[in-house]
Amino acid sequence: MANRTLNVGVIGCGRIGHIHAENLATRIPGARLAATADPAINAAKKVATQHHVGKAVADYHELLADPAIEAVAVCSSTDTHAQIIQEAAAAGKHIFCEKPIDYDLARIRAALAVVEKAQVKLQIGFNRRFDPSFAKVRELVAAGAVGQPHVIRITSRDPAPPPLDYIKVSGGIFLDMTIHDFDMVRFLSGSEAEEIYAIGDALVDPAIRDAGDVDTAIVTMRLKNGALATIDNSRQAIYGYDQRIEVFGSKGSASAGNRTPDAHLLTDAAGVHAAKPLHFFLERYAEAYVIEMRAFVDAVLHDQAPPATGLDGLQPVIMGLAATRSLREGRPVKLSEITATGTGHS
Amino acid sequence: MANRTLNVGVIGCGRIGHIHAENLATRIPGARLAATADPAINAAKKVATQHHVGKAVADYHELLADPAIEAVAVCSSTDTHAQIIQEAAAAGKHIFCEKPIDYDLARIRAALAVVEKAQVKLQIGFNRRFDPSFAKVRELVAAGAVGQPHVIRITSRDPAPPPLDYIKVSGGIFLDMTIHDFDMVRFLSGSEAEEIYAIGDALVDPAIRDAGDVDTAIVTMRLKNGALATIDNSRQAIYGYDQRIEVFGSKGSASAGNRTPDAHLLTDAAGVHAAKPLHFFLERYAEAYVIEMRAFVDAVLHDQAPPATGLDGLQPVIMGLAATRSLREGRPVKLSEITATGTGHS
Amino acid sequence: MANRTLNVGVIGCGRIGHIHAENLATRIPGARLAATADPAINAAKKVATQHHVGKAVADYHELLADPAIEAVAVCSSTDTHAQIIQEAAAAGKHIFCEKPIDYDLARIRAALAVVEKAQVKLQIGFNRRFDPSFAKVRELVAAGAVGQPHVIRITSRDPAPPPLDYIKVSGGIFLDMTIHDFDMVRFLSGSEAEEIYAIGDALVDPAIRDAGDVDTAIVTMRLKNGALATIDNSRQAIYGYDQRIEVFGSKGSASAGNRTPDAHLLTDAAGVHAAKPLHFFLERYAEAYVIEMRAFVDAVLHDQAPPATGLDGLQPVIMGLAATRSLREGRPVKLSEITATGTGHS
Amino acid sequence: MANRTLNVGVIGCGRIGHIHAENLATRIPGARLAATADPAINAAKKVATQHHVGKAVADYHELLADPAIEAVAVCSSTDTHAQIIQEAAAAGKHIFCEKPIDYDLARIRAALAVVEKAQVKLQIGFNRRFDPSFAKVRELVAAGAVGQPHVIRITSRDPAPPPLDYIKVSGGIFLDMTIHDFDMVRFLSGSEAEEIYAIGDALVDPAIRDAGDVDTAIVTMRLKNGALATIDNSRQAIYGYDQRIEVFGSKGSASAGNRTPDAHLLTDAAGVHAAKPLHFFLERYAEAYVIEMRAFVDAVLHDQAPPATGLDGLQPVIMGLAATRSLREGRPVKLSEITATGTGHS
Repeated sequence: MANRTLNVGVIGCGRIGHIHAENLATRIPGARLAATADPAINAAKKVATQHHVGKAVADYHELLADPAIEAVAVCSSTDTHAQIIQEAAAAGKHIFCEKPIDYDLARIRAALAVVEKAQVKLQIGFNRRFDPSFAKVRELVAAGAVGQPHVIRITSRDPAPPPLDYIKVSGGIFLDMTIHDFDMVRFLSGSEAEEIYAIGDALVDPAIRDAGDVDTAIVTMRLKNGALATIDNSRQAIYGYDQRIEVFGSKGSASAGNRTPDAHLLTDAAGVHAAKPLHFFLERYAEAYVIEMRAFVDAVLHDQAPPATGLDGLQPVIMGLAATRSLREGRPVKLSEITATGTGHS
Repeated sequence: MANRTLNVGVIGCGRIGHIHAENLATRIPGARLAATADPAINAAKKVATQHHVGKAVADYHELLADPAIEAVAVCSSTDTHAQIIQEAAAAGKHIFCEKPIDYDLARIRAALAVVEKAQVKLQIGFNRRFDPSFAKVRELVAAGAVGQPHVIRITSRDPAPPPLDYIKVSGGIFLDMTIHDFDMVRFLSGSEAEEIYAIGDALVDPAIRDAGDVDTAIVTMRLKNGALATIDNSRQAIYGYDQRIEVFGSKGSASAGNRTPDAHLLTDAAGVHAAKPLHFFLERYAEAYVIEMRAFVDAVLHDQAPPATGLDGLQPVIMGLAATRSLREGRPVKLSEITATGTGHS
Repeated sequence: MANRTLNVGVIGCGRIGHIHAENLATRIPGARLAATADPAINAAKKVATQHHVGKAVADYHELLADPAIEAVAVCSSTDTHAQIIQEAAAAGKHIFCEKPIDYDLARIRAALAVVEKAQVKLQIGFNRRFDPSFAKVRELVAAGAVGQPHVIRITSRDPAPPPLDYIKVSGGIFLDMTIHDFDMVRFLSGSEAEEIYAIGDALVDPAIRDAGDVDTAIVTMRLKNGALATIDNSRQAIYGYDQRIEVFGSKGSASAGNRTPDAHLLTDAAGVHAAKPLHFFLERYAEAYVIEMRAFVDAVLHDQAPPATGLDGLQPVIMGLAATRSLREGRPVKLSEITATGTGHS
Repeated sequence: MANRTLNVGVIGCGRIGHIHAENLATRIPGARLAATADPAINAAKKVATQHHVGKAVADYHELLADPAIEAVAVCSSTDTHAQIIQEAAAAGKHIFCEKPIDYDLARIRAALAVVEKAQVKLQIGFNRRFDPSFAKVRELVAAGAVGQPHVIRITSRDPAPPPLDYIKVSGGIFLDMTIHDFDMVRFLSGSEAEEIYAIGDALVDPAIRDAGDVDTAIVTMRLKNGALATIDNSRQAIYGYDQRIEVFGSKGSASAGNRTPDAHLLTDAAGVHAAKPLHFFLERYAEAYVIEMRAFVDAVLHDQAPPATGLDGLQPVIMGLAATRSLREGRPVKLSEITATGTGHS
């Protein structure tokens, strides 16, 4: 089994679909890019041509109907994820799906139920788990190097806000941006949040406030294992993408800082100067995208549990909904308040 | 005026009194250690002898009555600070007082009123403001290098908890330990807190919980200038004293990490290894204690405002009381709730 | 012209040929991997199949005879380089050739003469010039950020010695290993060496001494622009590949350290621990191999001078011969002594 | 014995004498500053007054004649060192002497012979040995953490050249500046140099060439234990005092970088910016001066060998003379060539 090749179709050929297609075609041992799909057929064709792939279609149902395709990478827009997951699972395809599955708990649960029933693999694209620095910190925590975790600290800042039109439909900062950090808290701590409190404001751009969102936020939470966590977010770090984590515990602290494009130092009369962090997620997580896809392909080929499951897709959405409600209501919100309501929409 | 010498008496010859006495005797241009006082007369005498000082008394009133002594450094136990400040001010002495002034807002205000009336200088011993790294960050923020501050992050961890008997009378972690971080938030941001939320637990030692306190905490707050802040505390970092700050704003980020006893690196088959942070405040802030006393002496000699005033002594206590109430009641607490009650005790 | 695709054949499908083939096939805009050649035909076929290339041959002359192939990447064994360069140039192919061209000055000069006459591009594979950290240092030096260069310092250590059989035919450490550092001195300084002095010994493995070579060396030199340089080499750094440079000048210092596989830090009771450097050149210079091939393809497509020319291939060999003679004779050796002898062999 | 106090007189009250006097008066347990001497009597008096010392004289012979004074710190000009050492030893005083003892080997040997006969302690002021970073590296090397040393690398640069008048009588860069680095090579390696080669030029200031000296140099050497060493020097690093060392060996590498006045980082649109190194030796080695004097006082009080002996004072002078001859004659020079000549002057 380890020697056979997994035929993977990519659904959605935008920026992230392009990355996964290229990785599947060139950097994932055991995988073959077998087909591409995109309603914008030219996008699908362009990726296919570039990687010597014969099949490029507008309608992803053609991929699902093709018995030669054993797995799909769902890189389409978020509002289509839950639907495609259900259809792909029903068609017996293994699924790699970009995050988030959906913002509606009921739709997520329905999709996961179909996956469960079809007994296919589902891996959610929480790429940061595969960043070598963050993975190393998790490995150290899991190995007991910091003892019992007491405090999780995450700083997560984007270089610039997305377009306002995007923000309006994004579900808000906690579901759009912090969701990665919520996953990281779970990943690093190996525990679940119990109660969340959030403060935030539009300090970068007042238009974001007018759109009903914030661009700067601090989230704190209590975890079930007793640890406390704090996340600080900004939509705009003028110096680039700022992604730092720390797990502090009874035996020490494991942390990971930013990566830089180079390791130069200039020392002159004004001081010591070094490079800024890698500019954004495409640069910072380029390696993580390769590693996560290798992990998915390995999980399918060796019939193992994927390293980021459907449950891992569900929980950060619950956390995002709790943070959203906390900010709105100015009080700490228990996750049980969210899960009790069914959809998470208050 | 700049060429004259200020005669300073030290009241309280314990650990911190010893440090200030030695600095006054040997490292503060323009100052002279003129006398020492301690109810344990041998402690007073030991310090005096060591630094060639003729006057060592058990009762500090003798210092206040001595016209040759122009200023006092109050290093006695916290419960005596407010009383000594009032008496020293009434006696016309300039006052350097260790933090905190008191835990009772009414007593602090009464003391400050006497100082105000007497027109003497009062500087509170917020030594961290004078740490070269933190002072540099403040300088950068004040110069606009990070633009408008958006997020303040402080990590503050002690190497080990104090004795349980101390914890029982300490006023709780927020008044005993976080108070320095509250001052740092004010110092770095140049703004005041509006609302505070705190979570915490006894993760280091359950006996601390039994004593009614926590040993691990995260505090978040909204500031009047719009910035958000987060502080994480632990009573026990197994690797030593961990003191880090960051001010993130519209134009960048200014931060300061720990200092180490040396700058060695060992690279071997297992990795790259460096020294731990300086162990505790005596090592980390040795230089800061000298600089703060120089600042006090300069303020008196040049009739300038001290860099850490009575108000600076008052505000962190209000913040500590708000955090204490927040933890107890599980909700964000506005500082106006505390100041409205008069004493701060709910 | 910028939009057309350059058809490149790879000659020699060993480790480094494999890397260039993969990069040409997947990461070099404007290039197409058109054919592979290797006397071990299976090696050629394996690479071709992997990258959807139709042509794989045992005899590279077939590539040189193919009018569809416009450029070749020469990745065969060193003793074949000069010969293939001459034949490829005569066939009108542009040439990317792994370093070194040869160890014999006369043969190098003969090859370069053919290239010159054929007016084809020749780029030598001094990959380190394209390492982002080293390239940044060069850029800073060229921009005047360090002023007039005074001292160049290079540390260059391998994780482990090559097999003894390899060492015996390697030409010695200065031609096999230091040659990269000699190129770096020229690249960083923008100047040429005038006189070289070398000391060395077999401290890692006495069998290397028996083979007539050393495994540890320090080389110093005077450059024509007045700067001084020092290189220290070891065949065995137990912690991995150690590649550091510094250019110190009248206005400051530009340096570049090692890169690590991740950016984690573990702080525990024993100290602060970080990752070792990337293990060896395949990891450290993975990105540099892509960038150098892009540069070659761009140079051909835009008819520009390649960034590492035939002269750049010649000079480090002269320097290596001078260092070899210096070590043998225990005295500083002028480069003019080497070039005067014709072949460089004393 | 450990509880008694050593009475120390300071001879020479210039910059360095001032430092030692202040340290003896305030920071050296077990020591008492008992007297000061300086031909400029006001300098002696100023220091004495500042530290409550009763005795300040113009002629140091008065100190040597005073039976209450048990030890002297010789901080006078270099040309007086050998003479004072002889007289002090003859008077039975223990001696701390600033480096170098002298530039003439015969005079050094004569002085050491008197010390040997008088059985007094002599410690030479190689302050860098007591720098916590360098001491830690030595400790690691001595403990075998890097295995057998193979390469020693030292970078040593001053912020600015001394006055030209000083340079003219300084003995040249190798005796005036590199001498510290020669000591460091011996200290770090635990071995002696066998052969030295030096290159150098006046790149900072042509007037230094006119004065017969160089301002930029690289020295390499073979040590008796087989290790190789390289030192690079500059009289002018525009960014301040640059003092870095590395010992590379069979099991790894121990190194030490510069210290900075603070640990701030500013990250903005242009990059990451940190503080320059501490400006010069007074700042960088402030702590080392205290530690070396403690070591001297402890050695006397506990009748132990001082950590920097007369031999340690002699050997770097021999190395400096060898480097000087190497530069002049353009060839490697064995130390045995220098010692054979008696005075070291060729």
